[in-house]
Amino acid sequence: MRAELLAVGDELLYGDIVNGNAAWLGGQLADVGVQVSTSIVVGDVIADIATAIVAALDRADAVVLTGGLGPTQDDLTREGIAQAAGVGLHRDAAEEATLRRRFEEMGRSRAGSGGRGVPEMNFRQADLPVGAQALPNVPGTAPGIRMEIGSGVVYAMPGVPFEMKDMFTRSVLPDILRRAGEPAVVVHRVLRTAGMWESMVAEALADEVTRLEPLGNPRIAFLASGGQTRVRITARAADRLAAQELIAPVEAAARVALGPGLYGVDDDSLEKVVLDLLGARGATLAVAESMTGGLLAGRLTDVPGASAVLRGGVVAYATEVKSSALGVDPAILETVGAVSPETAVAMAAGVRERLGATYGLATTGVAGPDEQEGKPVGTLHVGLAGPDGATTRTVRLPGDRRRVREFAVVQALDVLRRVLTGVAAAGDFGPWVPTGPR
Amino acid sequence: MRAELLAVGDELLYGDIVNGNAAWLGGQLADVGVQVSTSIVVGDVIADIATAIVAALDRADAVVLTGGLGPTQDDLTREGIAQAAGVGLHRDAAEEATLRRRFEEMGRSRAGSGGRGVPEMNFRQADLPVGAQALPNVPGTAPGIRMEIGSGVVYAMPGVPFEMKDMFTRSVLPDILRRAGEPAVVVHRVLRTAGMWESMVAEALADEVTRLEPLGNPRIAFLASGGQTRVRITARAADRLAAQELIAPVEAAARVALGPGLYGVDDDSLEKVVLDLLGARGATLAVAESMTGGLLAGRLTDVPGASAVLRGGVVAYATEVKSSALGVDPAILETVGAVSPETAVAMAAGVRERLGATYGLATTGVAGPDEQEGKPVGTLHVGLAGPDGATTRTVRLPGDRRRVREFAVVQALDVLRRVLTGVAAAGDFGPWVPTGPR
Repeated sequence: MRAELLAVGDELLYGDIVNGNAAWLGGQLADVGVQVSTSIVVGDVIADIATAIVAALDRADAVVLTGGLGPTQDDLTREGIAQAAGVGLHRDAAEEATLRRRFEEMGRSRAGSGGRGVPEMNFRQADLPVGAQALPNVPGTAPGIRMEIGSGVVYAMPGVPFEMKDMFTRSVLPDILRRAGEPAVVVHRVLRTAGMWESMVAEALADEVTRLEPLGNPRIAFLASGGQTRVRITARAADRLAAQELIAPVEAAARVALGPGLYGVDDDSLEKVVLDLLGARGATLAVAESMTGGLLAGRLTDVPGASAVLRGGVVAYATEVKSSALGVDPAILETVGAVSPETAVAMAAGVRERLGATYGLATTGVAGPDEQEGKPVGTLHVGLAGPDGATTRTVRLPGDRRRVREFAVVQALDVLRRVLTGVAAAGDFGPWVPTGPR
Repeated sequence: MRAELLAVGDELLYGDIVNGNAAWLGGQLADVGVQVSTSIVVGDVIADIATAIVAALDRADAVVLTGGLGPTQDDLTREGIAQAAGVGLHRDAAEEATLRRRFEEMGRSRAGSGGRGVPEMNFRQADLPVGAQALPNVPGTAPGIRMEIGSGVVYAMPGVPFEMKDMFTRSVLPDILRRAGEPAVVVHRVLRTAGMWESMVAEALADEVTRLEPLGNPRIAFLASGGQTRVRITARAADRLAAQELIAPVEAAARVALGPGLYGVDDDSLEKVVLDLLGARGATLAVAESMTGGLLAGRLTDVPGASAVLRGGVVAYATEVKSSALGVDPAILETVGAVSPETAVAMAAGVRERLGATYGLATTGVAGPDEQEGKPVGTLHVGLAGPDGATTRTVRLPGDRRRVREFAVVQALDVLRRVLTGVAAAGDFGPWVPTGPR
């Protein structure tokens, strides 16, 4: 089975937006073993859309198209498909009725009015090439299109990413797999790790990858970004349950191999996991930041409802603010310096006490571009103070200022996670130095 | 003049990376009036590269290609161009000598050794299709390729963005413009605004856009992202000086139209501009954050050397921390609430005093997803306290939690910038409420 990607839109051609849909679709198709040999972008021109479809179907079995399905004059994908197939357009009565109902639900038209007041142009979205089937757009309005041309097929989806992803997963991918004679359901499972580099994760799972390689299903992929590594397990099967049964033993083996590096699955985020761990214990948190300069608090407050657990934080950027606002002993700053495990612990203890939190979490280090106190760029000391004592972890992070600061946030959250879950002693990359009774 | 974009690489096809090069190149070509009708991605397959080049030259005058020029076996752009042109490859002696010298300079080979010790495979980068010209790669190693095929031309550049951008600006664009019979130099000037939505910027410059439209040179483009709007002026001319002379009157008119909304040019950042304004006055800053939860401090500390001006900050997420850590009068919190101009000013005054800074800057508001104290999502109060008094600004921001928080950071920085530059009274989108003597 060979597929080609086709995206329609002047805004893609002229760089106003990046073609992220193609990247996502390419990854999805690769995961299920569909070969993607070409990805094309054309502008809002009927002839260009039609020519690209005909050329693509000459090389491949399926064209997966995004964009150009909206209501305005420059949305011309419907016309392009019709021209490629040599047919006309007709207004689909069922789709038009669905649109009128949707506009009422969205409050764009008075309930029971049959969509009155919505500009007529919007109902262009119910036009279909003769012989095409509509694909349901659950989160949006414009339906997708499935059109057989010769022995090939064109699937057209909206360009809006969340509408496209829903339609692809719901309608397009199952149809592609059915045509390919492949089992029709694809299930992903994502395992999320923190405190492990991609190479460590790959090494931990090397045996499982080797075992699965000749089978081809399930597949394992490693995805690293923002200082975290994800493991994606993808299975194809006749139904959802069978796919989950294929994933289960791989996930079980991966969980053992990843050990305490695993913090969550699927859409979990490290900051949410940490806040939930604290919340479940009735505990609160305060943060003290030097190296991360507010990014750690910023990440935690990204989570709606963080205020139930996070009391607040202090960004102690100037050295003397570490003493005045956090109570760090000036003698520590003078003797071992602001970038030290001792300062990290004192910052954590200080913010814990001053903001009245169960735990205090602190970062100090060297983000670059220049070294500081003779300590190299990438040096990070995390300090953690709790009701029973305090501890630190020291690591050396790679990358430029932006990456070092981003990685430091993940490291700090991971230190707290490991202490809260009691796996701290497993420390994958540096010993723990208890600095008080626990 | 018509051009097509062609990107080579399995990693693009399968979504490991997004095709940002195409977006950038599309924008650059659009700026100079070159029509881009199609953008294609193919994998690391010689026949696919060659077929795509031949098909593109059938439709367009030039193919702008990226990727596949590296030293490994799966870098096959050289072979693809040669196949499309029906010629062979030869090792270019001058390019090979350049490579050997570069490897010595990079420390990958002993000085004076002629590149000894560098694996032979690296010298594939000196292979050129017969009849092609090499394009210099100033920041990297793999040279680019310029190859005439029939009446068309192929330009091949590395996929590494900073190498590609340098080569495009230095060699490819001037050659395209020369072939098109157009002046050979393109100069961009970016004007950066804050506190103005894209529609306000477009409206302010409407007359200038209308005046330039029929001329086609210079051109004005509006680019909105992260709560800021940029104005890009692009001019083509026979040389750099002439292009700058074309830009000057447009920039002057735009500066008048944008007024106090303009904060910088080209690569300036709002946070850097604000830190520099403070630094020039020998002033320091402390921030108090509720709605932005650390992101404001995080943005300021992105700037290397921020510590000379930024003393630090307090993230007062829990309401009682606003009293305990910032000294906000509990009566204010009880009567008008945490989301109020009064609280914003009290937070700013509190952090200014407690952290010993010249200015205190504070945010409080509703980031969502739910309203708070009966105030709607997007409400933002910025507080600013200085040596002579305090002031606030209240705005309503659009978007989801992530966008609202990002916009709030820009708004807060912009309030401080306008006060420091004395343009505060011009307030484009809301009156200033002085809450103390200034």
